[in-house]
Amino acid sequence: MMHTLKFRRTFVTAILLVLTTLSGQAQDNSDQLYAIFPKGQKAPAANFTGTAWVSQLIQADSAFNIPVGNVTFEPGARTHWHSHPGGQALLAISGIGYYQEKGKPIRILRKGDAVKCPPDTPHWHGASPEVGFIQVAVTPNTPQGRVTWLEAVTDQEYGNLKK
Amino acid sequence: MMHTLKFRRTFVTAILLVLTTLSGQAQDNSDQLYAIFPKGQKAPAANFTGTAWVSQLIQADSAFNIPVGNVTFEPGARTHWHSHPGGQALLAISGIGYYQEKGKPIRILRKGDAVKCPPDTPHWHGASPEVGFIQVAVTPNTPQGRVTWLEAVTDQEYGNLKK
Repeated sequence: MMHTLKFRRTFVTAILLVLTTLSGQAQDNSDQLYAIFPKGQKAPAANFTGTAWVSQLIQADSAFNIPVGNVTFEPGARTHWHSHPGGQALLAISGIGYYQEKGKPIRILRKGDAVKCPPDTPHWHGASPEVGFIQVAVTPNTPQGRVTWLEAVTDQEYGNLKK
Repeated sequence: MMHTLKFRRTFVTAILLVLTTLSGQAQDNSDQLYAIFPKGQKAPAANFTGTAWVSQLIQADSAFNIPVGNVTFEPGARTHWHSHPGGQALLAISGIGYYQEKGKPIRILRKGDAVKCPPDTPHWHGASPEVGFIQVAVTPNTPQGRVTWLEAVTDQEYGNLKK
């Protein structure tokens, strides 16, 4: 009887360990984002809807005038409409992202996707409503600047995903 | 006694499950690389020592003249010495990388590190001897081209890591 109780206690501990480990893995595969780069600071509320985080990975200088940054969007967060005089490349790192150029349907972005946004093309990007999104952005810094901010993306525009 | 045996069998199964799960996690943290982008094609042997893989994420065009690529170095693999007329930004994705500019010590690169290599600066990068390395490279395509290849990195240069 002593043995039975001892085994029972150890068995329960072992099962709890397995469950804890497995539940951790399940989270990594769904709503938890896998970050490569630092999360950085909160993005300016003036140009974003919801909560996003920005870290500058490569600062532009006179010799290498192409800043590279990491953006983490919490679920539902997105940029305002904007355009880039020199265009922009987006690299999807983790989670589920939305990307839309004016007049085109919303595109879903997932880990490993790469998007080239042409110069002077109004667009927005952000996370899906349920799952956040991490992206790297490469933005040439032209004499005309890096970005021109436009109006916010309305809830109607954000929700207009063609299934 | 029946109970004791039953618990013992279930207990052993549970412990095996825990060990399997934990050993899998340990691998993820050491010699297994976590890829974000496609591995692509084998890098040209003319400019690399060992085996490396290259995938082009963003093709340069006249409007966005900044190609972005992903390079996967197997353990021990590295580029030859080379320089970029427009400089280059490197982003470390996974594994353990080496980066060296001519005349400076080797730098260790890990997930989340970012390096800005100045224009016309001879340098090389690659994996550590035991652990591979994945990086993203942002390389402005200037009128002088993207890259000037130089001589191979010797085993002596590669092994010259100041501890």
